[in-house]
Order: sequence, then structure tokens, then C-alpha cells
Amino acid sequence: MTQQEMMNYRADFPLLRESKVAYLDNAATSQRPDCVLDAQRKFYETHNANPLRGLYQLGMDATEDYAAARETVRRFLNAKSDSEIIFTRNATESLNLVAYSYGLHRIGPEDEIVVSIAEHHSNMLPWRMVARQTGATLRYLECTPDGSLPMAELEAKITDKTALVAVAQVSNVFGRTNPMDTIIDLAHKHGAVVVMDAAQSAPHMPIDVQALGVDFVAFSGHKLMGPMGIGVLYGKEELLEEMPPFLSGGEMIEYVTRDKVTYAPLPHKFEAGTVNAAGAVGLAAAIDYLTAIGWDKLHAQEVALTDFALQGLRAMPYVHVIGAEKAEEHCGILTFTVDGVHPHDISAILDAADVAIRAGHHCAQPLMQHLGTPSTARASLFFYNTEEEVQRFLDAVASLRRQMGYGE
Amino acid sequence: MTQQEMMNYRADFPLLRESKVAYLDNAATSQRPDCVLDAQRKFYETHNANPLRGLYQLGMDATEDYAAARETVRRFLNAKSDSEIIFTRNATESLNLVAYSYGLHRIGPEDEIVVSIAEHHSNMLPWRMVARQTGATLRYLECTPDGSLPMAELEAKITDKTALVAVAQVSNVFGRTNPMDTIIDLAHKHGAVVVMDAAQSAPHMPIDVQALGVDFVAFSGHKLMGPMGIGVLYGKEELLEEMPPFLSGGEMIEYVTRDKVTYAPLPHKFEAGTVNAAGAVGLAAAIDYLTAIGWDKLHAQEVALTDFALQGLRAMPYVHVIGAEKAEEHCGILTFTVDGVHPHDISAILDAADVAIRAGHHCAQPLMQHLGTPSTARASLFFYNTEEEVQRFLDAVASLRRQMGYGE
Repeated sequence: MTQQEMMNYRADFPLLRESKVAYLDNAATSQRPDCVLDAQRKFYETHNANPLRGLYQLGMDATEDYAAARETVRRFLNAKSDSEIIFTRNATESLNLVAYSYGLHRIGPEDEIVVSIAEHHSNMLPWRMVARQTGATLRYLECTPDGSLPMAELEAKITDKTALVAVAQVSNVFGRTNPMDTIIDLAHKHGAVVVMDAAQSAPHMPIDVQALGVDFVAFSGHKLMGPMGIGVLYGKEELLEEMPPFLSGGEMIEYVTRDKVTYAPLPHKFEAGTVNAAGAVGLAAAIDYLTAIGWDKLHAQEVALTDFALQGLRAMPYVHVIGAEKAEEHCGILTFTVDGVHPHDISAILDAADVAIRAGHHCAQPLMQHLGTPSTARASLFFYNTEEEVQRFLDAVASLRRQMGYGE
Repeated sequence: MTQQEMMNYRADFPLLRESKVAYLDNAATSQRPDCVLDAQRKFYETHNANPLRGLYQLGMDATEDYAAARETVRRFLNAKSDSEIIFTRNATESLNLVAYSYGLHRIGPEDEIVVSIAEHHSNMLPWRMVARQTGATLRYLECTPDGSLPMAELEAKITDKTALVAVAQVSNVFGRTNPMDTIIDLAHKHGAVVVMDAAQSAPHMPIDVQALGVDFVAFSGHKLMGPMGIGVLYGKEELLEEMPPFLSGGEMIEYVTRDKVTYAPLPHKFEAGTVNAAGAVGLAAAIDYLTAIGWDKLHAQEVALTDFALQGLRAMPYVHVIGAEKAEEHCGILTFTVDGVHPHDISAILDAADVAIRAGHHCAQPLMQHLGTPSTARASLFFYNTEEEVQRFLDAVASLRRQMGYGE
């Protein structure tokens, strides 16, 4: 991607056009291009009705838009069938759905659930709930200080006792991609299913659920330039078929009497109540936008920026970047600490320089304890960020210790 | 409201401006005024960040917008505290949250759950799930053919055994308002809590949760001119405090170690994952829009239209309107059958005349069985509908039997 190409794309983002802020908190949520906001608005302005219910033209238009959005997500993940794509509110709901509907019904007191210690709370707390309620044992995959999951650790923890492995494809703290092929092979060899949290990976890389052979995948729209309030759960059809519904209400039934209920076929069985069709349409527009640019271009642009930022940070001896050596293995995420400066102060001082980064535990407190730090700072880049923004970030980090009174 | 005033408001709705369709399916979902779509878009364009997480200005702006939306909902319901307002995806999720988090933990095998037979599936199936899992007994309040819940029926079913009563404030089939004061008094006298489904009522009347003394209230944004993908659960603070979280993940925790977790204070305990801040902002704009018009004006306009439609339908001897005599007791909903014409044909033929109404079981199959009909047609009016649209609807209904070959 040339500089000009990137700037042309960047011009598609209204907040980036108008704001003077260097927005480097993309791992928390992304900005949205006009086309996503337009698509969502167009739905409300021209096709708005309650999908799947109305037999009139407007209702059928709404239903078609919603179905088309689902087909876009199916293609995006290369799922076998639209029945395997469930629209949820966000990745957190997707993961909870699997925990409640698969976990509570298929896991027992003899089973083990394996979760990485680096997981976001949303892919850890639901499994702790399942372990608590079923009597299953929770086992943590311990990562190395740079965020790797060593083969020996995987082999030690994923055993014949394992019923389920829950791991993020990309950690929201390290930005490192976990060896999903290995984990899935190992889990399947032992008869366990794998739940992959793709919240951080889906915006940055192509995911092929059939090639991976993964059982469940969760991601959010809002990190992928889509609207807030829409997320996705992919599940293998044969697994979803066997699972009882999670939420119950309208749409998810076939027939109800006073005493009996027959559930609707997939995917509707898991989509109770009025669906967020406008959100789904917006998400589909975001997927189309990203895939039209092309993953290779996006990746190259992101790696170049990350490399620039990494080199700048490493030139400062009081800055410590967490994670892999190579920029390629950061997925745009730079988590770091600065000697003597609390991460909250880092974020506040950078904010004064119009640089927006995150500080805190990143919804991964057990990992912070594992790493021996209560919190860290995190800058996270997307392809639309500029070198100038990264330079501003680096300059502000360089000024931190001086501002905190440590001298040069 | 004068005709001109109404037409001025109607001009605020882009779909109504552009479409030739008489949209009479407002009980399924409403149309949105520009100000709602603008508010949502403005959030993305100027304040978009992940609320409650970022310590930088943009993140704080997003957090403030989200908090302001919650305060708008609190005022709308006259709740005591913002802690009592939980943002969900839709009314269905709100009701399921209460079922999972209150129902499964506070109801036992000796208890009875009382649900009206006229409930929407979303306020019936979750309680059947609770009864199934806890061993509690489900008892139906049987309504009369015109949709009333007689006092004798309420007194017979709501007893000392009752743990929970789940009733819609307004039925989505009859449009009739249930005697909530009586039901709540009776339930509280027997130590039961009341869950009020306000999905159909919230768009049409002021709700004062403190005056009602109701324990839980659920409604959706999308029926109230707000965006899809956002809903509300109100719960009394002392009840919510005692309830375990429903979904777990980010935001809803205070502190997490490998083994322990302390949950965040209300309302965050029940809002796991990235919140739909843009949706909440849109919903707040919708509430501001409706309340600025004024409930009295909205109600008078709606009753006049409903009366006009009711009189027209009653002049046709082969049309049978279900529900109350008076237009005031329909909340804009006209559910009807036509002798010899299947409701699906009614909807299809009306669609050809550009009149959008609903046909089917309205997610209330047990009620349909109770009424002895598999399905009905339903026109539902909002204040922005015109007399011309209602006349077009009446003309199309009048032509139905001729079109189906019954002669004049």
C-alpha cells in the first residue's frame, strides 16, 4: 500500500478526518468508514421492518438484507453453511452462549476445561462459571513472559481428560498469534472441542474455519469497523444442532403449545427476539470494505507501522515492550511499561499530546498477575494510522519521564 | 395534535418520506426519525471509542454519552437510580436475564410462576425454562376472549405459592393494558415479584416504575423509534444487588485472580463486553423525541386513528376484531380475522395495495390456541400514520373477499 493509497482509505473515516487525535486504541474498538455508517442508515431509511416476520414487501426486503449479511459473514469465515453463523451482540455474548448452551450441558465433573492464562476475561470467566456449575476442573495454559504457549505446556495440559479448550487466536495484550493448528489438532486427538476467541484476530487476518477445523469462533463487529451491538458466533453445524437454545423468545421457535415447544432450525434457534438487522448490514459492509482492500496489503501496512513504533520504543532504555521480538508477531499491539511511570499517567500524559492509548489491565487481570504487573500501557495500530501519528506517540513517550520529574 | 402538526412530525421519518407504503406494522418495529439516526451517527463520527475503558478524552466522551443515555432512560421510567437501568440487546434478552439470574437462583420446586396465556413467547418461554430447571410449577392466567384478565382469575392464581408473576403491560395481540396496579399489589401481598414486559407499552404511555412499585421492567429500543440492538432492563436495586451476573466478560468485574472474582457495581455487573453505546445514544434520542411531543398528544392522535379504523372494520360484517370495544383500549393494535380469508392472504393482498400489516401467530401461539385460531391479521398504528393510510387499509380489507372470489 502506498502512502497515498493509505491516505485515500483514511479519508473514508469521518472521525479520523475531523479529529486531531492520534487514535491508537484500535484493539479496544475501531473507527468506522462512511460506507458502514451509510449501509446501516440506508437499511433504516429504505428497508426498515422487523426481519423474518412480515409477509409484506418491506418485511421481505429487511429479511433479505439480513440474510445477505449472514452470507457475507459465512464467506468471510469460509463456513460450510449459513446455519453455522449466529448473530449475537458481541464476542462476549457469543462466548457466553457456548458456555451456557454447550458447556453446561456437555461438560461434567470428570472433565477438564483448558484456558490460557492470557485470555481476556470474556473467554475465561464464562468457563470458570461452567467449571463451578458442573464440577469440572479448570486448567490454565501458562504462557511464557513473551506470550508464547510452548508445545510442552500444550501437551501437558490438553489430555484425554480435556473436554474443551478456550484460546484466543490473537492475545489482546501480546498481539501474538497462538498456534491454533497445533492446539486444534491436539484437542481433537483427545476428543475435546476448541473455542477460538477471534475478537482480536478477525480484523487483521483471514480466518478459514474449515481449514482450521475449529469448533466455535467468536468475534465482535465493533473491532472490525462494524457497528457496536453486533457480534458473531460460528459453530459447527453438528454441534449447534445438538445444543439447546440459550435465550428464548420470538423467532427461535417453530411451534409452541401450553406444554411443548419445538425449536426453529439453525441459525434462528439461537437468535431470540428482534434481530439487529441494521447492525448485521453494517458489519457486512465493514467486511466488504476490509476484504476489498485485501489482507496482504493491510498486513504489510500494519507490520511497517508496528516495526517503526517498536524500533522507536526499543530505543528508549526505560521502556519495556511485552511480547514477541518481531513486528509481524504483534498484530498491531504494543503493550509496554515505562520505568517509574504508572500506566495511567502514561495514558493521561499522552492524551494531553492528543495521542489516545489504553492503560490498565486490558480485561486480562490473571495475565497481569502472571506477568507480575498490575497494569500496562497499550498502543494498538490499525492500517489507517500514519507514521506521523506513531511519531507523535513516540515523542510523547520520550517526554514522559521528563514530565514526571526524572530528568532527561 | 392538528393534522399539520402531525404531518410535520411525519416529515421527520426518512422511510415514511420516501416510501409509498402505508406502514401499519408498528407493533413489530417502528420507523426512526432523522434525529435518532443522526444521534447514532454523530456518536460514531465524533465520540467513538470504547466507553468505560479509555482514560483519554475520546474514551471519556464516549463514556459520558453512554452515561447520559442511561440517565435519559432513568428519567423516562422514573427509576430511583441509574444503577437500576441495564442496557441489553432487546426486551427478549432483558427477560432472559431475569429468568437466568433471578429465576434460576431464587425459585424452587415448591414455588409457582404465574404467566398470562396472552404473553409473547419472550415472556413465556424463559419462565417455562425456569420451571423446567427448578421444578417450579407454571400456572397460566387465562384471559377472556377479549383479552381481559378478570379479578377472580388473578386472585385464584396469584397465591402464597407464587414466587413470580410475568405479565405484559400491553398485550401485543389485544393491545389491551393489563391492570398492573392490581397485579403488583396482589403479587406483593403474597411475597411474589412482578416482571413487566413493556415492549408494547413503552412506546405509547409514560411508565413510572416507582409509582407502580414493579420489580422488573423490560423493553426494546426498536419499537420505540430507537435503533435495533438495544434494549433495557429495569430492576429494583435491592433485587439486582442480590442477583449473580448473567453474562461474564469485560466490564462486569472489579477484580479477577486465577481463582476469585469480585464483580463490578451495578449497573456494570450486568453489562459484559463492549457496550452498544451508539445504540444507547440513539435510544435516548428517540425517548427525547417522543417525550418532547408529549404523551397526551400522542395518545389522542393514536386513539382518533384507531377509532377511525375500528369503525371501518366493524362496518364489514365478515371482519372480526379481537379485543376491547373502545379504541382507547387498543394501544393502536387491531388484530382481526376475515371470514373465509386466511390471514396470510390478507397480508399478501394488502401488500399489493401497499399496505404493510402483520399476519401470523404474533409470537403468541398459546394465546392463538386459547382463542381457537391458528393465526390472525394485525394492523398496528403509530401516531405518524395518516387517515389516508387507514382509509387505504380499510379499502383493501373491503376488497379482500371480492378478490378471493366470494363476491361483494
